Amino acid sequence: MKVLITGGAGFLGQRLARELLARGSLKDSQGTPQPVTELVLLDVVQANDFGDRRVRTEVGDIAERSVLERVIDDQTSAIFHLAAIVSGQAEADFDLGMRINLDASRLLLETCRQRGHRPRVLFTSSVAVYGGELPEVVQDDTALNPQSSYGAQKAIAELLLNDYARRGFVDGRVLRLPTISVRPGKPNAAASSFASGIIREPLNGEAAVCPVAGATRLWLLSPRKAIESLIAGLELDSAALGNQRVLNLPGISVSVDEMVAALREVAGDAAAARIVFEPDARVEKIVGSWPGRWDTSRAEGLGLSGERNFADVIRSYIEDEHIQLR
Amino acid sequence: MKVLITGGAGFLGQRLARELLARGSLKDSQGTPQPVTELVLLDVVQANDFGDRRVRTEVGDIAERSVLERVIDDQTSAIFHLAAIVSGQAEADFDLGMRINLDASRLLLETCRQRGHRPRVLFTSSVAVYGGELPEVVQDDTALNPQSSYGAQKAIAELLLNDYARRGFVDGRVLRLPTISVRPGKPNAAASSFASGIIREPLNGEAAVCPVAGATRLWLLSPRKAIESLIAGLELDSAALGNQRVLNLPGISVSVDEMVAALREVAGDAAAARIVFEPDARVEKIVGSWPGRWDTSRAEGLGLSGERNFADVIRSYIEDEHIQLR
Repeated sequence: MKVLITGGAGFLGQRLARELLARGSLKDSQGTPQPVTELVLLDVVQANDFGDRRVRTEVGDIAERSVLERVIDDQTSAIFHLAAIVSGQAEADFDLGMRINLDASRLLLETCRQRGHRPRVLFTSSVAVYGGELPEVVQDDTALNPQSSYGAQKAIAELLLNDYARRGFVDGRVLRLPTISVRPGKPNAAASSFASGIIREPLNGEAAVCPVAGATRLWLLSPRKAIESLIAGLELDSAALGNQRVLNLPGISVSVDEMVAALREVAGDAAAARIVFEPDARVEKIVGSWPGRWDTSRAEGLGLSGERNFADVIRSYIEDEHIQLR
Repeated sequence: MKVLITGGAGFLGQRLARELLARGSLKDSQGTPQPVTELVLLDVVQANDFGDRRVRTEVGDIAERSVLERVIDDQTSAIFHLAAIVSGQAEADFDLGMRINLDASRLLLETCRQRGHRPRVLFTSSVAVYGGELPEVVQDDTALNPQSSYGAQKAIAELLLNDYARRGFVDGRVLRLPTISVRPGKPNAAASSFASGIIREPLNGEAAVCPVAGATRLWLLSPRKAIESLIAGLELDSAALGNQRVLNLPGISVSVDEMVAALREVAGDAAAARIVFEPDARVEKIVGSWPGRWDTSRAEGLGLSGERNFADVIRSYIEDEHIQLR
């Protein structure tokens, strides 16, 4: 089976690639495991190919038709579309966000339609599609009212995928991901970047700035569970999704104060003391418009699951990233 | 004040133009009436200019940037964007629907953004943005789940307008119109075309085919009230709309059987007997996915209103179109 990951050099893309290579197979649309014979990693920067002969890396602009035509052919039967401009950057550079989050997503669907072989296509979406006055627990049928350009672009991509799926151009599915925490590496331009930074930096002996109030509630998922969910989401039986291809993924609802308490529980007072609160109105406005919790019974009914508590998320981060506690 | 109507040669566009010319003024964004000094009617076909010197007609493709740049300048302070590919045609010709309902709407917003003067822009949207499993009465915060390409394209245009408004590129507002009935003239390619045809043709002494079952519930608005609502919607105080620029317009919830009964009440048994029921699965599928009623308390709170009963709608059609009952 030939598989494509867009954003293949990114954090989730690389982890997903590693996991697919380790598993060695992916279920086809009939539910039968098939060996992954070719894994194409597309990104604007060179992706790591892990020295694995099944991997083909491609460097290119995903908003260019010729690039998509190079990586999607009629043998490409599974596509994970992870490439995106993150929330903070899409707010700062409107045109870039529209080009990558909207135009490239549409071009990807259009390329599949031209090929005519109805591949399985998984889009990732986000808490940012919600906004405005929200119920305490967001339901599957809560209206979208994004309060950021990133959220609007993701909501539009969801609608496009739904319609391309309804028309039979692709076998599509969208997973709305909670905020991913704890991400390893450097801070990024996402408004939610702090949700990893306030755990990662203190564990690394460094100070971290938290730009939102301690009472701010987040909806989180670990990278480990996110990767599991992406694979399970692609393997879901199409018929079970019916006319609504979008799933809200299970996550944990925690306040920043609870995150700090979990850090203290796992790594001690000294680590927790490295977090400095410096409110940033721009970040608070974006993050504050997102729901802190959503009803995920539909996803759970389809076999998807999240974590139980945030201390376990920190422990899995320490384990996966081989962190030495100081 | 310079005003633009896209779809200016269409049924609603022409009626709106006539009404604006008759009123002679439109409130500006401060709520002060200003004389309509220039009314630009853009369409793919030549619009009627009513022999009025304030009217400038433009023939052009609204999905062309140069056409939009010709009709929107930094003096254009009110834009009614009515141009659209109707539901049945957008389902039959996917590319055409995407080009006009999505690309042209975006290009219009983008042209306003380039001009930089933040004009008031009103988009019309539709019942077709809803679909799937719906509550009996659709609420303002019921999630969109369009089951037609037309509905998906309209939902995307709503999201675009909301984001362009949030960023201050336009002073935007969207009115979701009920199905308009009774439209004069010929049937069109809208899936809902019958909702006018089953009244118009019998009043004209002709047979009409109804492609859906008598129990099918529709959400209707007369052309007269639609025009009133478009003008009131554009004149609404921007601050009152807040971060949600979309309004569900008041309408009447009637079944096809009730429409037939109203026709009998107004025009007698012979007229009602001219309706022949011939179910068409394609139309039933599209129309059946639309809600038959929605909660319009928000629009009513802002001063918008619909009709009381469908017999009155038929009577206003007879009056407006000078129909002689036979």
